[in-house]
Amino acid sequence: MSVRVAIAGASGYTGFELVRLLCAHPSVVITGITSRQQKGHRLDDHYPALKGHCDLVFTDPDPEMLASSADVVFTALPHEAAMNIVPVLLQLGVKVIDLSADYRLRSAEVYGQWYSAHKTPELLGEAVYGLPELHRDRIRAARLVANPGCYPTSVILATAPLLEKGLIDPSSIIADSKSGVSGAGRGASLGVHFCEVNESFKAYKVAEHRHTPEIEQELSAIAGSNVVINFTPHLVPMSRGILSTVYASLGKGVVGEDVDTAFKAFYAGESFVRLSGPGALPTSLQVRGSNYCDLGWKVDQRTGRVIVVSVIDNLTRGASGQAVCNMNIMCGFAENTGLAFAPWQP
Amino acid sequence: MSVRVAIAGASGYTGFELVRLLCAHPSVVITGITSRQQKGHRLDDHYPALKGHCDLVFTDPDPEMLASSADVVFTALPHEAAMNIVPVLLQLGVKVIDLSADYRLRSAEVYGQWYSAHKTPELLGEAVYGLPELHRDRIRAARLVANPGCYPTSVILATAPLLEKGLIDPSSIIADSKSGVSGAGRGASLGVHFCEVNESFKAYKVAEHRHTPEIEQELSAIAGSNVVINFTPHLVPMSRGILSTVYASLGKGVVGEDVDTAFKAFYAGESFVRLSGPGALPTSLQVRGSNYCDLGWKVDQRTGRVIVVSVIDNLTRGASGQAVCNMNIMCGFAENTGLAFAPWQP
Amino acid sequence: MSVRVAIAGASGYTGFELVRLLCAHPSVVITGITSRQQKGHRLDDHYPALKGHCDLVFTDPDPEMLASSADVVFTALPHEAAMNIVPVLLQLGVKVIDLSADYRLRSAEVYGQWYSAHKTPELLGEAVYGLPELHRDRIRAARLVANPGCYPTSVILATAPLLEKGLIDPSSIIADSKSGVSGAGRGASLGVHFCEVNESFKAYKVAEHRHTPEIEQELSAIAGSNVVINFTPHLVPMSRGILSTVYASLGKGVVGEDVDTAFKAFYAGESFVRLSGPGALPTSLQVRGSNYCDLGWKVDQRTGRVIVVSVIDNLTRGASGQAVCNMNIMCGFAENTGLAFAPWQP
Amino acid sequence: MSVRVAIAGASGYTGFELVRLLCAHPSVVITGITSRQQKGHRLDDHYPALKGHCDLVFTDPDPEMLASSADVVFTALPHEAAMNIVPVLLQLGVKVIDLSADYRLRSAEVYGQWYSAHKTPELLGEAVYGLPELHRDRIRAARLVANPGCYPTSVILATAPLLEKGLIDPSSIIADSKSGVSGAGRGASLGVHFCEVNESFKAYKVAEHRHTPEIEQELSAIAGSNVVINFTPHLVPMSRGILSTVYASLGKGVVGEDVDTAFKAFYAGESFVRLSGPGALPTSLQVRGSNYCDLGWKVDQRTGRVIVVSVIDNLTRGASGQAVCNMNIMCGFAENTGLAFAPWQP
Repeated sequence: MSVRVAIAGASGYTGFELVRLLCAHPSVVITGITSRQQKGHRLDDHYPALKGHCDLVFTDPDPEMLASSADVVFTALPHEAAMNIVPVLLQLGVKVIDLSADYRLRSAEVYGQWYSAHKTPELLGEAVYGLPELHRDRIRAARLVANPGCYPTSVILATAPLLEKGLIDPSSIIADSKSGVSGAGRGASLGVHFCEVNESFKAYKVAEHRHTPEIEQELSAIAGSNVVINFTPHLVPMSRGILSTVYASLGKGVVGEDVDTAFKAFYAGESFVRLSGPGALPTSLQVRGSNYCDLGWKVDQRTGRVIVVSVIDNLTRGASGQAVCNMNIMCGFAENTGLAFAPWQP
Repeated sequence: MSVRVAIAGASGYTGFELVRLLCAHPSVVITGITSRQQKGHRLDDHYPALKGHCDLVFTDPDPEMLASSADVVFTALPHEAAMNIVPVLLQLGVKVIDLSADYRLRSAEVYGQWYSAHKTPELLGEAVYGLPELHRDRIRAARLVANPGCYPTSVILATAPLLEKGLIDPSSIIADSKSGVSGAGRGASLGVHFCEVNESFKAYKVAEHRHTPEIEQELSAIAGSNVVINFTPHLVPMSRGILSTVYASLGKGVVGEDVDTAFKAFYAGESFVRLSGPGALPTSLQVRGSNYCDLGWKVDQRTGRVIVVSVIDNLTRGASGQAVCNMNIMCGFAENTGLAFAPWQP
Repeated sequence: MSVRVAIAGASGYTGFELVRLLCAHPSVVITGITSRQQKGHRLDDHYPALKGHCDLVFTDPDPEMLASSADVVFTALPHEAAMNIVPVLLQLGVKVIDLSADYRLRSAEVYGQWYSAHKTPELLGEAVYGLPELHRDRIRAARLVANPGCYPTSVILATAPLLEKGLIDPSSIIADSKSGVSGAGRGASLGVHFCEVNESFKAYKVAEHRHTPEIEQELSAIAGSNVVINFTPHLVPMSRGILSTVYASLGKGVVGEDVDTAFKAFYAGESFVRLSGPGALPTSLQVRGSNYCDLGWKVDQRTGRVIVVSVIDNLTRGASGQAVCNMNIMCGFAENTGLAFAPWQP
Repeated sequence: MSVRVAIAGASGYTGFELVRLLCAHPSVVITGITSRQQKGHRLDDHYPALKGHCDLVFTDPDPEMLASSADVVFTALPHEAAMNIVPVLLQLGVKVIDLSADYRLRSAEVYGQWYSAHKTPELLGEAVYGLPELHRDRIRAARLVANPGCYPTSVILATAPLLEKGLIDPSSIIADSKSGVSGAGRGASLGVHFCEVNESFKAYKVAEHRHTPEIEQELSAIAGSNVVINFTPHLVPMSRGILSTVYASLGKGVVGEDVDTAFKAFYAGESFVRLSGPGALPTSLQVRGSNYCDLGWKVDQRTGRVIVVSVIDNLTRGASGQAVCNMNIMCGFAENTGLAFAPWQP
């Protein structure tokens, strides 16, 4: 029997990626897609690529209607918009996987500092941060999963094993991240104009990007102490992909083998983390279009630091693929159902 | 029960694409991959993207060994190399899908003019040109399928309906084609250096590209007369995709509706041709990573010409996807088995 | 003594290119720049690249003010907006080089068919089409020069020598053109979103692009008869550059040498046309950032056609560089003043 | 009177860039270009872009011949090859600007650790590190200038003002750098194949790149103590440009204003450093094709670190433009002669 799913906010890149993945999922039927802007239009007019795969028409995001025909709803709405609809959906008895930032932070106060006043702080304790490698058991039982941000997915997976084993100084972490342009969404603006991005490279929102508290929350939980980091996002002239270069100072006496062991132990048995290192570093291309996070690392004896390189596809592992993975866990399917394909090359 | 397949010449881009598709095919098991250069190395060291999907090791291209463990062999070798191994494979009783140019031309003389002296002209009559929309029935019964070239696939599918209905002047056909860089293969050369391709656009092999006789052979068969065309390939700074713009003069009295009808009739019921037109033109992006050929067209009353725009992914529909489709037909599988996924966006 | 110039509509890519070129011009001083949207802002805030080169502030496009401080005004406004200001500027005694389409067509009727009703048809007879290789003498004496479109520049220069010598059938001309994205301007829209352009190739406005009548007008004048062509623009995932592939049927008895001779004769002594052919074809990269048009060609004996490949930089030769060249001619400077630099590689 | 210059190793991208810049230099005449591989061929056959700008023919790199016709020789040879010819050139009385790494390190021992045994250690004391902002006076008097590496130029200029004023902890410096592909040179290899670079991002030579000791040498000299850093290069899918993101911990009590003041003071009066910050960060695009280094910075109160973003064009400021600037200083020309043009946009 199939699970019935609906997607609220399906006209952007993460919406497309959800449809693409869910169309090919053997145990899912998509029953509804919403978009205020595209309301009344067919999805495959909006995305001719989907012709022959989905004949749905966009509707207004009416939670009653969504809940009446779906068991699971993916909310791919802007932050602050998601929290208007998520509580209603939960009350109507559907499970929700929210791709916005609205339920990622456990603290309403922190949310308020980086975003705005939270409207449903009472749900923050219940929401589960949907990074399967960290919270698989709680995801299994969740009504509401907060799907992680793209940058945080790459940075947390790069750092968690080292913090868990206490191999690094938590105050020394610097995450220098680089993302393809689809991370900025499908809206038109000068910042994503081809001629402004092509043959250019830039940093943005340095020391003020909203993914910072999300990373710090998860790393703090692992470290058992308050972790404050530098996180610097950059824009790469490519459509898909994130590479994060994470720097941290090794604790006294820690050697390369300790690092190797920590990564191998932490990710033993995982379907969607592949270890390139030690001795090799992954490229963003080698995970394109897939749900993998590939990790490599290097210990620099000269400076006493470890450098971890983490790559994901921002739309798949960084958003829609991870959301489908969370759905699989919530619905009791094998975790890699509908996601067990190879990356695209070239 | 699974079909056992092997790939001779698996280290390049079409080889990778074959492995990617065949790994996900529900009725296939890959039993061997060959590469002189990569002999002894694991495929997933060569292509880290495939880690977890294929643990095969490259061997030398020994036909005896390939035939002993495979029912179907894909030969993805350079032209002139393929004809050294294909006859041996056939004699050993395996079916062959050849991705080179060696068995595409029915005339050894024409092959000699554009390539070199053919070594096994006796097989040219038997080989079936593997364009399913034209030769489905013969493919079904074939021992040897000559998988079409990437450019010819796009140009023939754009032109066939018009020639079949006699709507255009066969002497007026001009095919202006544009291809991504992966069509040039994975070998290193100045011509594919990032800095020579990026921010550049060029024509090459004007009026002398070897795909010309292949296009003319198939169009002549449809027209029932000798068709000579202009074919101009160009290189686009992108990795994947072909767009062909085909021009032809309409016959007397032919109107737009005749063109529309011809396309709809010719491609009725086809899984892998989608009609964008009349009234809309496809982009190469909308078929990326898929086996589709999308077609749009426009009749220009001012000049009496029809302009057809045809898009494919050069590695999928233009090579490995079409090869898998041919295998499906030869093996009695549904034609879209393992190929029924949506294109990649963006 | 320096010529004082002003630029109306200086915030887009052609505006930037004008400023870049005029800043480095030894006999020019820029006295004003206008932009409704950027009014009150410094140009070098808008374009940090220009810091240290131009400290001007955008003003409203007031013709009185422009005329009071400039001898020559470049109007880089949208078509239909230009014809509101150009007549006033002329009346105030300044010379005008208009980069819009408003004064390129000699016939108000044709303008009406492709654009809208012309507001100052009385000026169409006086305006000179600013292609120096064709109209140098008239440009020298002009008050108003209509700077050619980017596509027309590439197509006309590719075809003129053949038509002038009567070597081709005027009814057989097909121009298949490919342009970088900067040709679409700097305005934000989905069509120029990096992720919609990157890894994509498309045709657009097939058989209905507004540059068609402009090309036909100039080719008709050379041929001495009414020339109707097919012109098909395409979008290339690159920032700058146009390559046009022009096809035409050779007249009876015309041989390759006739074609070679025609090109050499037509462009003898020209500073900004370089002949790559016969035997070699230019790439768009080899003229990037320069005012050159490079031309190559090939005669196809099999089909009796000649194929000409023409490359320009759409912002330099296709807009601002040509405008500066026209200014040089109008002001009595050497034609290549401020334009005698080599193209950018890579 | 013109200075006569020759270029040893002129066939690569830095060679092209040298020719491009020197052709347009008002006080220079190029008398010779060498290339073993291209010997006997015209430069403008190799680079059609240069047609009409340089009609020289490549010769073998014979120092006697070079010295007989040149006052200044640029050596753009691979490291280890340069030190074979540089001493001979000096002995023959010409001034040398070496673009290789051979004379950048003052210590033969350090050179030996990162490269190989140095053949002319006696020249290391005399060679001047050609970063004008640091060593202008010594460059003026030099016989031999070692032109800085591309990455070091961007990192040293980003860090020098902070170290000089003692505002940062020298042991905390991390330089995360990103470069366009032309930095890898024009040689063909899989690593620069368009399809391997496009839509990909990667780190390489982490903690072992040879530009590390060069950066450390210069920073140590400024700090007055031994500085050891982490330097991580990455490859960006673009042709030109470097952006370095430099992290360092601020000393106790240091505030944002101290950082602002340090940058403004250090670069007061400089022609080729432009300060974007505080409050704005530069993009690599805004300096493309120019000799500028643009700098922005941000103080992160939460972590006590300063983040500096530094952008250059790797071929101009990172190689050939800086070499011409050094020549200007050595020859007594104004420092910006032939370099005073605006960057290319877009």
